[in-house]
Amino acid sequence: MTQEEMYALISRSKVASLGYTDEEGRQNIRMVFCTFHRGIGVHLISTNTSSAHVQSLLKNGNACLYFSDASAFEALCLHGRAVVHFDREYRELIWHPQDVQYYPGGVEDEDYCVIEFIADSGRFYSGHSENYKGDMTGQEIEAMTAGRTLAEHCTEA
Amino acid sequence: MTQEEMYALISRSKVASLGYTDEEGRQNIRMVFCTFHRGIGVHLISTNTSSAHVQSLLKNGNACLYFSDASAFEALCLHGRAVVHFDREYRELIWHPQDVQYYPGGVEDEDYCVIEFIADSGRFYSGHSENYKGDMTGQEIEAMTAGRTLAEHCTEA
Repeated sequence: MTQEEMYALISRSKVASLGYTDEEGRQNIRMVFCTFHRGIGVHLISTNTSSAHVQSLLKNGNACLYFSDASAFEALCLHGRAVVHFDREYRELIWHPQDVQYYPGGVEDEDYCVIEFIADSGRFYSGHSENYKGDMTGQEIEAMTAGRTLAEHCTEA
Repeated sequence: MTQEEMYALISRSKVASLGYTDEEGRQNIRMVFCTFHRGIGVHLISTNTSSAHVQSLLKNGNACLYFSDASAFEALCLHGRAVVHFDREYRELIWHPQDVQYYPGGVEDEDYCVIEFIADSGRFYSGHSENYKGDMTGQEIEAMTAGRTLAEHCTEA
């Protein structure tokens, strides 16, 4: 899977799957809205503070973020950690006026927070690529992340 | 989310997401073909013995299985364990003649195996239901599983 194919998969995904372990040691998956990206390595997710996954991630940030397109036989599993942010800087960073439908209190709504997912390794699957599947190291992810700006599309710029 | 809505979600899903922990302690998600079900509690997955997730599950079977339909705002996360079967009984149970495209050696192909996922608790999310989200106990799952036969659709029968 090429770098461009990974960027394209992430860019066209409105949702991703977040994998984590809860307080009882159970594996969990939760679908999340994930539309802000910095390269391959950093992804911002707006979510409800009161959600079970936020409470679990505050105790154990070990997580993965999975982008997939079953119809294209493509998937990308990023391994890393999830950091939960409550400060205004992060809240404003990805706030959309229409988010008020989910958070009536606006950008200061107590139930609104931002999960920052930071990847340090990864694995890709692509049914159409010559390199069907393969691993990515932290260095490779860093090379596809450093110098990029946070954007609603995952691009080379 | 009603029992019927859960059965319908599982039945129309050709793929599910399997969450597990690998040998390095990293969270992982892998998309799997999951079309054989016994009620809500037991799901059979055909997969490649050589795949990374099989090797991880043989060491640590603690896993979750996630069925989701983003367009319907429905998701079901089952927590439990994954058991990897290599014996002919399980191989034949879910073998389809067209599977030979993935396993040229047929039902005896060394790279073919069956993952049995057994749920002992769960959580559902439904944007359209009055009960937006909720937990299921092992007893509730057992009540939706006992007496059912293994089938390619998840039904009450």
